Amino acid sequence: MSKRIITITRQYGSGGREIGEKLAKRLDIEFYDNKLLDIAAKDSGIHKTHFEESDERRTNSFLYLLSTTYGQGGVPFDDALFFAQLNAIQKIASRESCVIIGRCADYALRDFNNVVNIYITAPLEDRIKRAINSYGIGEKHAAEYVKRMDKQRISYYNYYTDKRWGVPENYELCVDSAALGIDGSVDLLESFIKMYFKE
Amino acid sequence: MSKRIITITRQYGSGGREIGEKLAKRLDIEFYDNKLLDIAAKDSGIHKTHFEESDERRTNSFLYLLSTTYGQGGVPFDDALFFAQLNAIQKIASRESCVIIGRCADYALRDFNNVVNIYITAPLEDRIKRAINSYGIGEKHAAEYVKRMDKQRISYYNYYTDKRWGVPENYELCVDSAALGIDGSVDLLESFIKMYFKE
Repeated sequence: MSKRIITITRQYGSGGREIGEKLAKRLDIEFYDNKLLDIAAKDSGIHKTHFEESDERRTNSFLYLLSTTYGQGGVPFDDALFFAQLNAIQKIASRESCVIIGRCADYALRDFNNVVNIYITAPLEDRIKRAINSYGIGEKHAAEYVKRMDKQRISYYNYYTDKRWGVPENYELCVDSAALGIDGSVDLLESFIKMYFKE
Repeated sequence: MSKRIITITRQYGSGGREIGEKLAKRLDIEFYDNKLLDIAAKDSGIHKTHFEESDERRTNSFLYLLSTTYGQGGVPFDDALFFAQLNAIQKIASRESCVIIGRCADYALRDFNNVVNIYITAPLEDRIKRAINSYGIGEKHAAEYVKRMDKQRISYYNYYTDKRWGVPENYELCVDSAALGIDGSVDLLESFIKMYFKE
């Protein structure tokens, strides 16, 4: 069986992470979300808390960029974190079939074979509900929070890649998770992946 | 069985029309592409050639808009053509299951139930090849032609609707037809539609 790499880009609260995790189980392949940061931290020698603090968002501070550089090359610290993740993604994809959530994985693997890129959306009202019920975000600020998380991810992606976040042409498939629900979306994606890799 | 309305928005040369036609056959429901214009022409009393001449594009001429109005209300002629198609789409969707290609059908049916909106893309190089091999566009100007057709459709859609063309959130599913090919895409969409309508 050929290696199968699946990247999932997801709107905040769309259930993309859950879909990815269930899809990996169905396909019996590894699942990388937060676990990716462990590898990036270990390989780069930068403490994991730094990756977690700036996960898929730019610090955006000019002073911060001026004052914090990393290593002998004087790379801004943000960039060092990005490149450590990019290396980790490429290392993982070189060795095994997997599902990778976010972190510009589609961009990191743009020159790799056997990569399928998926984008998961959901209507805003569904995403706000998931933020409240599943992620414990306070009802009062949930709408604002969801929109801010999207903006952070979009800004991070568009800054570090030469592609645009959420443009259908960048993905083999874009799925509105509200159409079939979480498990239905996993069913559809499982069929799609099996058809794509001609199993 | 409940009524099933499927709208297909497609990039020029993506094979979206062919996918829609095959999907309609598989589901044994009506298929509307050019045929929609017959109904719009018949119901509005405007000759079909006018619909064909400005099919999914704006004439974009200020003088034209000034000089050509239609009917007692003095509606610009372009708008009269748009509204005649909108009425035809709503009439068809009220009476039968169908696949409708383009013509802002997703917008026309935004308040209807049992509607699934699909967007079909393909890499630019594939679309140029299809324009040359299937639509007989000259090789020299094919790339330019494909891009202009896209621009016309996008401009038409964004002018007449309050939505943006090609934004994943507007569709239940976006499919890159190059991922599975035309027949593979039809297979996937058939599964999706059957899951969506819980058959």
